[in-house]
Amino acid sequence: MRSLRRAVLAAFLTAITASIAAAQTQPPQPAQEPIALRGMGSFHIGGRLVEISGKPVKEVTFTAGGVPAKVDPNGTYQVEQMYVQYFLPAKELGTVPLLMWHGGGLTGVTYETTPDGREGWLTMFLRKGWAVYNSDAVERGRSGWAQYPDIFKGEPVFLTAANPFERFRIGAGAGSYDPDPAKRKLLPGNQFPNDGYENFVKQNVPRWTTTDDAILAAYLAEIDKVCPCVILFHSQAGTFGFKAAQARPDKVKALVAVEPAGVGDIAKADVLKNIPTLMIYGDFIEQDSRWPTIRATGVKFADAIKAAGGSAEVVDLPKAGIKGNSHMLMMDKNNAEIAALIQTWLEGKGLTRKP
Amino acid sequence: MRSLRRAVLAAFLTAITASIAAAQTQPPQPAQEPIALRGMGSFHIGGRLVEISGKPVKEVTFTAGGVPAKVDPNGTYQVEQMYVQYFLPAKELGTVPLLMWHGGGLTGVTYETTPDGREGWLTMFLRKGWAVYNSDAVERGRSGWAQYPDIFKGEPVFLTAANPFERFRIGAGAGSYDPDPAKRKLLPGNQFPNDGYENFVKQNVPRWTTTDDAILAAYLAEIDKVCPCVILFHSQAGTFGFKAAQARPDKVKALVAVEPAGVGDIAKADVLKNIPTLMIYGDFIEQDSRWPTIRATGVKFADAIKAAGGSAEVVDLPKAGIKGNSHMLMMDKNNAEIAALIQTWLEGKGLTRKP
Repeated sequence: MRSLRRAVLAAFLTAITASIAAAQTQPPQPAQEPIALRGMGSFHIGGRLVEISGKPVKEVTFTAGGVPAKVDPNGTYQVEQMYVQYFLPAKELGTVPLLMWHGGGLTGVTYETTPDGREGWLTMFLRKGWAVYNSDAVERGRSGWAQYPDIFKGEPVFLTAANPFERFRIGAGAGSYDPDPAKRKLLPGNQFPNDGYENFVKQNVPRWTTTDDAILAAYLAEIDKVCPCVILFHSQAGTFGFKAAQARPDKVKALVAVEPAGVGDIAKADVLKNIPTLMIYGDFIEQDSRWPTIRATGVKFADAIKAAGGSAEVVDLPKAGIKGNSHMLMMDKNNAEIAALIQTWLEGKGLTRKP
Repeated sequence: MRSLRRAVLAAFLTAITASIAAAQTQPPQPAQEPIALRGMGSFHIGGRLVEISGKPVKEVTFTAGGVPAKVDPNGTYQVEQMYVQYFLPAKELGTVPLLMWHGGGLTGVTYETTPDGREGWLTMFLRKGWAVYNSDAVERGRSGWAQYPDIFKGEPVFLTAANPFERFRIGAGAGSYDPDPAKRKLLPGNQFPNDGYENFVKQNVPRWTTTDDAILAAYLAEIDKVCPCVILFHSQAGTFGFKAAQARPDKVKALVAVEPAGVGDIAKADVLKNIPTLMIYGDFIEQDSRWPTIRATGVKFADAIKAAGGSAEVVDLPKAGIKGNSHMLMMDKNNAEIAALIQTWLEGKGLTRKP
């Protein structure tokens, strides 16, 4: 009897070990339905050339065991270009392309697979029939970055693993983060996938706070190449989305501002009066130290657009019955629900075709 | 008569201006045939946590006009992770996935659309039915980078616009580059798209020369997650491709070394004896100051694999009748021809299914 129990236990352990091993070696799960593309690709855009002079020549061995090469740091450098990756659906149902602009310290990865491995907004909107253009802002990700202090002013900012957890309305403020997911103090009902938080931290990249002009210039170059379009933008890109639309009002057919951390030139809000604008805010704003002010700035900007005769809708998700959203709405467990809300709004603005 | 000529000239100027404007505002050209995907997405993998302590707290305003936030630089940092983007064809014809590893100072963009806007190897091999995993090496692109000298040793290397032109066997050595494409001294018959060179420069990112161990560790993490697989690698990744295969010989079904700038541990070449290996070199090697030595290192490594009873084929493209290739074979005008050569080799190794 004891030997039978032991055999059953051994079989159980073998089975569970095998299933864990299988889970670990499995490639990422493919999505449910096939995606048909008429094209995909990438390009870099914008930027400028800068001269550096008066520095000594270096000898660099690029590969261990390789052959040293002379590298003269003096000369002309390409800086402040921007990387854009695009996916064009076989059956395009958006009347114009959809540009996605990420927030500070991040890259276009923001809109890809969520940190816990679910589908992100890039493929969600692609499946809805949008031609999606996803970019890395200047000095982030595949856009590269330039020498400092020679070219970029100031130093880059790096975030600790704890910082976004405490600042992006995932955890309950300072001290809420713990390396052990089970010991973290999440805001009650928070929709951010806590078990994917480590992967979200891996998505963070260094960023400067002195490069706004260069970032905006590259976004304008993207608009000039790709638009007319809809622009969906998040957090730091609030400033860029609104300012870019103010600079190219005829090229922008709608703005979707997802928790914008900044806005455009409020004195020129009337320039946006023909561009339907949607602003979306998540949960836990009132109890945060910074977000009530940030949200108020956004609402004031929306009011200025409306006062000029424009259309700007502010959606506070909790008031719309959608609760628990962090600052990273596109990664939250209910990201599909928010994507659907945006899609319905875009359909209402006549920016989609019937399948 | 004069007014007629003036009117014709005006009409001509209007037409040409409109056509230039149209060319500039056109979105990138979609590819010829649709691509059907059963899935696509991305993930970060590998890396480690590092403690930094003893630094003062900073106040940072992340967005102009935003609300300042306190940023404590002390704490735990996630470093040395790697970004991987994957595309899974609806009809998979590779028996295993195909991993693409780029060279130094670059990112996965290497395998995307070529700098002059043609299709790159990523979509070419996807169309041939391979599940393609394209990554940014540690500290490049979407993988992010870490503080130096606190975490990374040494300084990053930046390349001038001229440097790759003169070093990657595109131009005829030092002094061959000129900002004006028409004034550049190309190696005769060179296949690199000279008119796309500016865009290639935009793809360059800073890189360290002290991060090999971290890069290799992340590649091993990718292998452990995704493989068995074929690995196609270029330039700096020569070292990583061969060393990774030596560390995981059972997981690697074939190696395609595209102008490897480094190799593995030659004393352990026998570990690769069951892994079919293809090495490809382009043109203009003999007249280069460094490439004869770099190629000789690769050939010696291939000989060591063969001496141990393995299969390692060295293809010098000019001897195979394919002339004019630079170091950036996957971007050269005949990139499809070289992709076809690789595909035929992979088919010959039994790594593909019939459609």
